[in-house]
Amino acid sequence: MSFDIIRAGRAILHVTDLNKSREFYDALGFVETDSDEENIFYRGIEERNHHCLWLKKKPEAAVEAISYKMASEKDLDALHAHFQRQGFQTKWMEKGSQTAIGRTLRIRDVSGLPIEFYAEMDQVNRMTQQFHLHKGAKVQRIDHFNCAVPDVEKAYDYYVKQLGFSCSEYTATEEERIWAAWLHRKPSVHDVAFMNTPGPRLHHVGFWLKDPLSLIDACDVLAAMGRGKAIERGPGRHGLSNAFFLYLRDPDGHRIELYNGDYFTGDTDFEPIRWALDDPMRQTFWGHEAPDSWFEEASEVLDIHTANKISIKEPTLKKRKPNFVI
Amino acid sequence: MSFDIIRAGRAILHVTDLNKSREFYDALGFVETDSDEENIFYRGIEERNHHCLWLKKKPEAAVEAISYKMASEKDLDALHAHFQRQGFQTKWMEKGSQTAIGRTLRIRDVSGLPIEFYAEMDQVNRMTQQFHLHKGAKVQRIDHFNCAVPDVEKAYDYYVKQLGFSCSEYTATEEERIWAAWLHRKPSVHDVAFMNTPGPRLHHVGFWLKDPLSLIDACDVLAAMGRGKAIERGPGRHGLSNAFFLYLRDPDGHRIELYNGDYFTGDTDFEPIRWALDDPMRQTFWGHEAPDSWFEEASEVLDIHTANKISIKEPTLKKRKPNFVI
Amino acid sequence: MSFDIIRAGRAILHVTDLNKSREFYDALGFVETDSDEENIFYRGIEERNHHCLWLKKKPEAAVEAISYKMASEKDLDALHAHFQRQGFQTKWMEKGSQTAIGRTLRIRDVSGLPIEFYAEMDQVNRMTQQFHLHKGAKVQRIDHFNCAVPDVEKAYDYYVKQLGFSCSEYTATEEERIWAAWLHRKPSVHDVAFMNTPGPRLHHVGFWLKDPLSLIDACDVLAAMGRGKAIERGPGRHGLSNAFFLYLRDPDGHRIELYNGDYFTGDTDFEPIRWALDDPMRQTFWGHEAPDSWFEEASEVLDIHTANKISIKEPTLKKRKPNFVI
Amino acid sequence: MSFDIIRAGRAILHVTDLNKSREFYDALGFVETDSDEENIFYRGIEERNHHCLWLKKKPEAAVEAISYKMASEKDLDALHAHFQRQGFQTKWMEKGSQTAIGRTLRIRDVSGLPIEFYAEMDQVNRMTQQFHLHKGAKVQRIDHFNCAVPDVEKAYDYYVKQLGFSCSEYTATEEERIWAAWLHRKPSVHDVAFMNTPGPRLHHVGFWLKDPLSLIDACDVLAAMGRGKAIERGPGRHGLSNAFFLYLRDPDGHRIELYNGDYFTGDTDFEPIRWALDDPMRQTFWGHEAPDSWFEEASEVLDIHTANKISIKEPTLKKRKPNFVI
Repeated sequence: MSFDIIRAGRAILHVTDLNKSREFYDALGFVETDSDEENIFYRGIEERNHHCLWLKKKPEAAVEAISYKMASEKDLDALHAHFQRQGFQTKWMEKGSQTAIGRTLRIRDVSGLPIEFYAEMDQVNRMTQQFHLHKGAKVQRIDHFNCAVPDVEKAYDYYVKQLGFSCSEYTATEEERIWAAWLHRKPSVHDVAFMNTPGPRLHHVGFWLKDPLSLIDACDVLAAMGRGKAIERGPGRHGLSNAFFLYLRDPDGHRIELYNGDYFTGDTDFEPIRWALDDPMRQTFWGHEAPDSWFEEASEVLDIHTANKISIKEPTLKKRKPNFVI
Repeated sequence: MSFDIIRAGRAILHVTDLNKSREFYDALGFVETDSDEENIFYRGIEERNHHCLWLKKKPEAAVEAISYKMASEKDLDALHAHFQRQGFQTKWMEKGSQTAIGRTLRIRDVSGLPIEFYAEMDQVNRMTQQFHLHKGAKVQRIDHFNCAVPDVEKAYDYYVKQLGFSCSEYTATEEERIWAAWLHRKPSVHDVAFMNTPGPRLHHVGFWLKDPLSLIDACDVLAAMGRGKAIERGPGRHGLSNAFFLYLRDPDGHRIELYNGDYFTGDTDFEPIRWALDDPMRQTFWGHEAPDSWFEEASEVLDIHTANKISIKEPTLKKRKPNFVI
Repeated sequence: MSFDIIRAGRAILHVTDLNKSREFYDALGFVETDSDEENIFYRGIEERNHHCLWLKKKPEAAVEAISYKMASEKDLDALHAHFQRQGFQTKWMEKGSQTAIGRTLRIRDVSGLPIEFYAEMDQVNRMTQQFHLHKGAKVQRIDHFNCAVPDVEKAYDYYVKQLGFSCSEYTATEEERIWAAWLHRKPSVHDVAFMNTPGPRLHHVGFWLKDPLSLIDACDVLAAMGRGKAIERGPGRHGLSNAFFLYLRDPDGHRIELYNGDYFTGDTDFEPIRWALDDPMRQTFWGHEAPDSWFEEASEVLDIHTANKISIKEPTLKKRKPNFVI
Repeated sequence: MSFDIIRAGRAILHVTDLNKSREFYDALGFVETDSDEENIFYRGIEERNHHCLWLKKKPEAAVEAISYKMASEKDLDALHAHFQRQGFQTKWMEKGSQTAIGRTLRIRDVSGLPIEFYAEMDQVNRMTQQFHLHKGAKVQRIDHFNCAVPDVEKAYDYYVKQLGFSCSEYTATEEERIWAAWLHRKPSVHDVAFMNTPGPRLHHVGFWLKDPLSLIDACDVLAAMGRGKAIERGPGRHGLSNAFFLYLRDPDGHRIELYNGDYFTGDTDFEPIRWALDDPMRQTFWGHEAPDSWFEEASEVLDIHTANKISIKEPTLKKRKPNFVI
């Protein structure tokens, strides 16, 4: 590639009530960098970029964009040229039009997802050693996006062959079709995962925690605050990715994953780990079932040009509940 | 009282295949003190009494007895006299008739449960600081019995008024009937709990772990060994007792609870904590539902005189699934 | 005994600057039950008694008393009679003369320590499940007192034979003299320990934490607040007691121990564990040396009658630094 | 750069007694991939490369080489050409001459250290989810090398400008001279650190653990096995790098660090964190002092051409104990 995507960078979520959202994300230990009556900007404890989560007050919950950070403005230009050559309709958001970030490049990707790229974001203090201010789940940093798409193989091919992502783990059908895939730029299990399910939708945004106990703390703190219903699934261990996980639903139903326990994937001789669609340990290593909501529900995404919700298509491969993963 | 019951002491369980049982209990880190072709004797890591779990090979799974340790032989005599005065039919097992234990006194209690009392047991080395030999869940010691009984108030009254137990927490119906009760001799939440459900049956034996991560380790280790199906419920937090819990089923279906996180209850001014039957946080503080098996299934118990299974009666109070607890 | 001491109950410490003290104890997660310009009353998270630590503003740091909770007022009367028979000069503090506590009985014990007994204390809410309010070391409850006394065997004999304490572990010289002893009423390793060192002085007050990570959190939080110098020793593992420990010095130099990991000692057949004075693993299981301050310094205690500092005597047995323990 | 170094790859250490070494490294949970009478090959639990630690039986303890893994054979050729252009005397070890690895390129670097590069290593099974086989410190993977060099700025310049490393954190003197530096290729705090102290020597090899409790387990297990003396420093928290650390000495005195808690450094706008040489929290965030041995002792390194020990030079900048770091 002539451009370098570093990592999953930020999510821009539309929420309907900033106070309710704040109560939820504050409880988990997100650090509020900035806010006004229409917006809250959150970052994780170790993050020095201004935000990884931008909540915008809107009449309806939706996903405006998920964003990747790039190595430089030059990489951004190269990526833009790349998209133009391929006939994508791109959209520039100029520097100054959004808080604390340089210009961003938005596209509707091969699955219809609203994707954004940027290189520059304002720097702020990391809170890593301000231990007396840590609380809740002590969320450290953004880790990944998990997207529901109707054609996983199409998404896989584009991200691997055209955008330079590598595959760490994947789920295969009996016919060796790719049913779900975990793709990364930074050397972790993933920056993005695609799953064979009605989409395009955002299934969840994953955040990295520093140890397993922080997930238990998240449950205890949410329950103590009367917000136990936010806990949708877990804590548990994924077979795929080996993550110790907890899935939460924010007040608008956006799903976030608290996540600890993956591994280094940066070797060029790393061979993707294959999981059979029917392997019972793939989804939950311990054998727990996930609730229906986890399989059925996901956040709707907006068209980057029209800001309308993008219509959802049925998946190409057969959908099977016990096999819908991570 | 003229006698002093110290604590829950041991469980005697009939199992059908010692090798399968051993694979399960060894994986969890129980210490095997002794065994032969018909028996295995397990203790926890910190325990200096010979065993807290006696598995006997039998054609059918059942509970032979649950046992309490007393302060002295003299206390045992006083208790015997107490039972005789009340017309209980008692049974002495003389010293030498059972491995590594002094004489034991058995009765069928007010709920029909097979209960045993003893004062003397052989002493062995504690393994507390043999850290290199700890494994699995690193089970530390026996903690409590949980019994399904048809008339909780009857059991409560007898254990509190006649045997000197104290109540730490309880569940009350709208009419202030005791629906479930947690009773202790040692100053923890319980040595025994009674729940309003068909019985008499043994719902589970609880074992104390030293920290929350040991429960996660238990899940990971069981799943890695292909025994993930043993995980029935949890890990999670109980509202009642505040325990961080994990319920497992052994190869014969006997249920054990791995348990961490209760508190000191030894003050004489300790007032029992009341939970309403409909409090959603009582059962699982985080809000998770328990599986049906946890509500329906329990180990059958044997008559101490005939060794036949004791017939099961429906509970006095209305049984309500979401309210069946811990 | 005709009286029943339940457990270590509270410490009354004189401090010179309540604001400095508050900053320290608040950081550790103690719960402030009450305070005014002259006093702060703290309790642990799980405690339902009004306080376990009473800080009184005074010109000079000292220990006014260490207190044990008794089963009832009747037990208190019986204990009073007991002391009178033995010729101790006792002092009653009538109900109402101290905040939130019934009458208390004070004596200068056989070692010269200011000891207090009480049965009644105001009840408040436990904070166990208010997880969103827990912070710092999440201190759960008072656990024990550790006292420097010149004649350990004299103290041992009185507490075991006259007050009904049991010994869990002890350090013996080559001549089988008791060099240090851990004594308990509640079934933990100790409510009080005595060590052969210049005294009478209070070496530290021990508080129970719920898991090992809470000790790490204590260090991180104190350091983040610029209070790292409060950390005197640890974290580490004691051979004796098996505790995972951390010793801190409060702004007046009073030492507290944060403590996790002991075991059940309530069996009547529990045999005290003997450690040789020269066993290198006794003091610190991992082999770390303790700093000189830990061996040399302790809080001075006041005469219960005169409120003057009690003069310090050299110990009966030889003092040996590497053997001075826990 | 025209070549891509991925990460710290392996250390080749000469040891004098393989049995003693095995007892130590096995206890910590290293996975033995292969061994014979002259060699042991270890890897971490999550590693799929054949080994990260090669112990060779020799009459004298020393460091034969520390090695970096490269992206491909082509990168290795480009690096070779790079060294040749600069006049380094290189040494090829052909494929087949060493166990389980492709050809390797060795040089004596600008500090005199024996450095090796390779692209290919045999693949084996990761043990990540074989939880029942994990033990001790559950070492996950190799993380970094820490090297004592006489001229840190010279090493810094070469690794950053010539080899493409990035600086995450560094220690500066009052005159803004670089006193120590942490450099990385993978996006963690470091693959290699250089410190201003007599060298060239290898101060330690760092290994990544999955959580803080694994360090406590390491101490407990080593002590239980009578190997507590292997614990040289910690557990504690580094200010610089934020790592929760434990330093151990193997039976030959080679130092290893068990390590948990750094953070993502892969952003191109990451600005190195500067620590003043006199900042007391830099070395140990909690304020603990390190023992003299930690400052004075390190493993001697061999000349890649002659296999003789390389002579040690005094450092360029003033050496100051309390400022010698991580």
